[in-house]
Amino acid sequence: MRAAVVPAIGAPLEIRDVPVPEPGPGQVLVRIEASGLCHTDIHAARGEWPVKPMIPLIPGHEGVGRVVKAGADVDPVMVGQRVALPWLGRACGTCRYCVGGWETYCTAPQYTGYTMDGSYAEYAVGYASHVVRVPDGVSSFDAAPLTCAGVTTYKALKVARPQPTETAMIVGIGGLGHLALQYARIFGTTTVAVDVEDEKLDLAKQLGADHVVDARGDQAANLARLGGVDLAVVTVPSPAAMHAAHASLNPNGRLVIVGLPADNTLQLPVFETVLKGISVIGSLVGTRNDLAECFALHAQGRTKVVARSRRLEEVNDCFEEVLAGTVPARLVFDLTA
Amino acid sequence: MRAAVVPAIGAPLEIRDVPVPEPGPGQVLVRIEASGLCHTDIHAARGEWPVKPMIPLIPGHEGVGRVVKAGADVDPVMVGQRVALPWLGRACGTCRYCVGGWETYCTAPQYTGYTMDGSYAEYAVGYASHVVRVPDGVSSFDAAPLTCAGVTTYKALKVARPQPTETAMIVGIGGLGHLALQYARIFGTTTVAVDVEDEKLDLAKQLGADHVVDARGDQAANLARLGGVDLAVVTVPSPAAMHAAHASLNPNGRLVIVGLPADNTLQLPVFETVLKGISVIGSLVGTRNDLAECFALHAQGRTKVVARSRRLEEVNDCFEEVLAGTVPARLVFDLTA
Amino acid sequence: MRAAVVPAIGAPLEIRDVPVPEPGPGQVLVRIEASGLCHTDIHAARGEWPVKPMIPLIPGHEGVGRVVKAGADVDPVMVGQRVALPWLGRACGTCRYCVGGWETYCTAPQYTGYTMDGSYAEYAVGYASHVVRVPDGVSSFDAAPLTCAGVTTYKALKVARPQPTETAMIVGIGGLGHLALQYARIFGTTTVAVDVEDEKLDLAKQLGADHVVDARGDQAANLARLGGVDLAVVTVPSPAAMHAAHASLNPNGRLVIVGLPADNTLQLPVFETVLKGISVIGSLVGTRNDLAECFALHAQGRTKVVARSRRLEEVNDCFEEVLAGTVPARLVFDLTA
Amino acid sequence: MRAAVVPAIGAPLEIRDVPVPEPGPGQVLVRIEASGLCHTDIHAARGEWPVKPMIPLIPGHEGVGRVVKAGADVDPVMVGQRVALPWLGRACGTCRYCVGGWETYCTAPQYTGYTMDGSYAEYAVGYASHVVRVPDGVSSFDAAPLTCAGVTTYKALKVARPQPTETAMIVGIGGLGHLALQYARIFGTTTVAVDVEDEKLDLAKQLGADHVVDARGDQAANLARLGGVDLAVVTVPSPAAMHAAHASLNPNGRLVIVGLPADNTLQLPVFETVLKGISVIGSLVGTRNDLAECFALHAQGRTKVVARSRRLEEVNDCFEEVLAGTVPARLVFDLTA
Repeated sequence: MRAAVVPAIGAPLEIRDVPVPEPGPGQVLVRIEASGLCHTDIHAARGEWPVKPMIPLIPGHEGVGRVVKAGADVDPVMVGQRVALPWLGRACGTCRYCVGGWETYCTAPQYTGYTMDGSYAEYAVGYASHVVRVPDGVSSFDAAPLTCAGVTTYKALKVARPQPTETAMIVGIGGLGHLALQYARIFGTTTVAVDVEDEKLDLAKQLGADHVVDARGDQAANLARLGGVDLAVVTVPSPAAMHAAHASLNPNGRLVIVGLPADNTLQLPVFETVLKGISVIGSLVGTRNDLAECFALHAQGRTKVVARSRRLEEVNDCFEEVLAGTVPARLVFDLTA
Repeated sequence: MRAAVVPAIGAPLEIRDVPVPEPGPGQVLVRIEASGLCHTDIHAARGEWPVKPMIPLIPGHEGVGRVVKAGADVDPVMVGQRVALPWLGRACGTCRYCVGGWETYCTAPQYTGYTMDGSYAEYAVGYASHVVRVPDGVSSFDAAPLTCAGVTTYKALKVARPQPTETAMIVGIGGLGHLALQYARIFGTTTVAVDVEDEKLDLAKQLGADHVVDARGDQAANLARLGGVDLAVVTVPSPAAMHAAHASLNPNGRLVIVGLPADNTLQLPVFETVLKGISVIGSLVGTRNDLAECFALHAQGRTKVVARSRRLEEVNDCFEEVLAGTVPARLVFDLTA
Repeated sequence: MRAAVVPAIGAPLEIRDVPVPEPGPGQVLVRIEASGLCHTDIHAARGEWPVKPMIPLIPGHEGVGRVVKAGADVDPVMVGQRVALPWLGRACGTCRYCVGGWETYCTAPQYTGYTMDGSYAEYAVGYASHVVRVPDGVSSFDAAPLTCAGVTTYKALKVARPQPTETAMIVGIGGLGHLALQYARIFGTTTVAVDVEDEKLDLAKQLGADHVVDARGDQAANLARLGGVDLAVVTVPSPAAMHAAHASLNPNGRLVIVGLPADNTLQLPVFETVLKGISVIGSLVGTRNDLAECFALHAQGRTKVVARSRRLEEVNDCFEEVLAGTVPARLVFDLTA
Repeated sequence: MRAAVVPAIGAPLEIRDVPVPEPGPGQVLVRIEASGLCHTDIHAARGEWPVKPMIPLIPGHEGVGRVVKAGADVDPVMVGQRVALPWLGRACGTCRYCVGGWETYCTAPQYTGYTMDGSYAEYAVGYASHVVRVPDGVSSFDAAPLTCAGVTTYKALKVARPQPTETAMIVGIGGLGHLALQYARIFGTTTVAVDVEDEKLDLAKQLGADHVVDARGDQAANLARLGGVDLAVVTVPSPAAMHAAHASLNPNGRLVIVGLPADNTLQLPVFETVLKGISVIGSLVGTRNDLAECFALHAQGRTKVVARSRRLEEVNDCFEEVLAGTVPARLVFDLTA
């Protein structure tokens, strides 16, 4: 099969012809139809995080396709079903976090496209227990970005416990942010979209943002004029953006962080955090439940995915495109092409 | 009356003879019996925070004594009652935060010993609505530290929502920390006390700490050996201590900050915060309810206050003593002397 | 002034000419423009609850109008403001429930149109602290039903903590229910409206209900077909309807009760409650915050009030109309007529 | 092996010699050492619930013993470990409730001693994923009652979210109640124990109850004198006791139901439920996490199990003893005898 492979940390990806993998016990083989590109894939390929990925690696954790083969101990009814293979490839099911509803913090996890091969390929293997069914009303192309960008921002909102009369600020209206904005609306909040590009601010308006704020202007003054915000989801991996978001929070405000900046440090102002009773909350992707909920919302027609289709052969250019920040929203590899 | 007065920002306090204040409408006059010394008083006297206190200022927001006079519109039944005058001198009662149960984040607050005169004096005025009754079983001497050190740490635990099988770490076993430790036990948690002085580690053991960790040793390794901690309350105003506490948190861990370091910045590691789903929570003192609860717990014999008595005339020396870190626990001015 | 007065428990109301009341300390006098009719007013006039109302009584706790006079200790800036006078006429501001954000459970409350005269009159007196400002974008006619029917159902949803992917069932699409349905949508839930009249089921559809179920048919089967419901708000004062709602709940389901049936007893099935981990939650009106939030949502154009205008002189007929169940939604007395 | 078998619904149990079961894939075989008697076992043997158990049935879901054999796909390291086999024999691990941390409401569960054979026998089979490790500091005899009576009441407290300054009432100080009382203390609450027998009221005092109330006296008046209660766990399967507990609740009070009365109906007073904002919460056993937490608390020496040892041959007499209410606390079959 055709796959994009990271041959060595930091090296460009290579399009190779590799054997179709065999599903082991508890696993399924999926014929990939669409696979989104997440910034994490770039971090993986470049080995930018403390724990390094397997090498050689097929990246990709926004893969969607149809089950074509079931391994031992898997209900054969799954063959033919359309599923997504998310970042959380497998969780143990028995640790304190798994049993407690927080499988994303499992003590013995597998990560798709990191500790096991991912979906930058025509076929990929996933665990039957942890792939998530895609409902009929959701195309594979749309399902791909929902599988990570969607569930990550949906969960970020969820942990912030938004109330319908609160104001939610979404910083960065790209692959994650354009979905975060829509989820904030679904939770009933008044929404403020922040970005530095006209095109993205326009997109925010089209997606129903109640207010847009151009961060190139006096962001602090503009947010103060709106009465401050009660919660902020920062989707850009920029400590400066997180700091600015923090500064606009009202008392009891919540700043949710999902991005992993290269510069790992947020300069958190203690005085304001204490005086206003602010919470800064880290949130990592979401559970199978969360992803199923994202799919259900999309099937109900309540979200809109903005993405561009690419061929897998363009993968290295796509990485550059993402790093240059010129991508309008999400890039999705079309594996049926 | 005798009072300790800050004549100018940064100047030493002066013991002066000033007129007994007159309670206005809604206020009561309290004959102070005991008044604790909180680090905030030093910040106030030195003007170390962005918003400056009134000048001249009588500091003190851990004052306890008996109501001797009631102003207009105050139920005369209050005369003779023993009450505490906490940091939150008055809240508006009608803003979103007051109505919502979060009066400490009132949009129009008065702060005792900061925006209004405090309890470093033989008499002080407080608002009838916001002084808190001290039950018979609690001495004025004990009530004083509970009025800020107690309620602040009690609330810090409360916002962290401890579960009895979780492990709570208290960093710094001084005026705040020795109470935080006891509250952590009351919430049922397994407790870890961290300090850098033998005397305070001994105190922690006497107060029932399940584990003590000497931060002069390999704190990270020792905490890892205990299985990490689920919540941490850092009572020392040190960003380094906060950072170290953050590093020992388990997934879903909560770091509660109540101290206001001179160096206002916590270098928050984003990667660990996201990967572990950590929350960093600011918490400011507590409400009248919270303080009444602290008093009730003490009346039940469930907390022990460790404090040393001082004369008001020693106030400047006491400030030095606190800054030098040589105080065993809380200092309390005896105004009956 | 003209007022509808209950002369004796159980007697028909009389339209009388009575003196305009004088606002006492902390009170305001309001020139009523609109005043909704709530079933509670009928209970009050007939003395159907354990605790009896004052007699003679001017009922009404959905009054809206403009402040024309401020009593002692009231900021004169309030004169000219448009405000609502809700059921919670006054709360003490100092009890455990008031300080904790639950003023509706105040231990020393005043109830408008029950323990103090209400708004079935050209003028009414309210406490400055507890009347709630009506924003410009909300008409007095619309504000009236929001003042009790709105805030009661809004709060009922709030205490049930709905999640956007949950299914919420609203039973009874009348004065309360048509608003409950809209709030359920604002919280993001998938909504099921249940009623026994075609007209109300049609109204539910117009208001955006995702599903409507005719309770004259096989309600249990129809709800099962939808996958059960996660929360139910029963707005009809019928234990049978509550029982039926309970039967359709999924595990972790929540049944919120706001109505007070004449037959006071819900036959709660214990086995199903335990086996499914169901919660049955009582909820009483809402706080000033909750009402301000209802007004804010309406000002944003997110709710629609369905009501009919009546003259105060029709009050006894209106009571009959409500008891006969022939009212399409809420009745509102026009006091400007 | 020796086992107590229910030969037919309603028939007395028979002590039989049956083959030792073989652990299937994912299962372990456990040599039972102790097995508690839960009232549910009687309901099972008599077929008193809507859904009937398998027949013939070996009851028992408080079994504790050592793993002697591991089935296919089970880590052989488990052999030799001491484990408990709780009511929740298996949960699917993939449904909405399992993934969300609520496996006790799994949509496809197995129940030990009900849908699969239980621990009234020398050997029993359990699922490796759902047996719970017993720590060294906990004897098998003590672990048995913790496995259902313990975890059920611990979870009941947990879902009620007790605060240390709240008052918790435990009704019935028997097998469940004597543990509920201790958990209520661990959560920090002030405790009130209610029973109708002197011996049990004495036991409550020995276990540290702050107050005891004899329900043969004027329970309502006595509880009112204590200031009412904030939460109540009713461990006796009596609707009348639940009703009385409800009547003593303060505003925002929570009544947790864990017992399944033969008369399935609680007459819930709607007026009081609404006026006080009361929640009635059903709770079913607990998860593997909850049970592990119960064991950890016991290993820390924070709970004390009161139980009497019996021989399996006495099972029918034991049932009579429980039904007659003459059992001091829990009965535990000693399978090593």
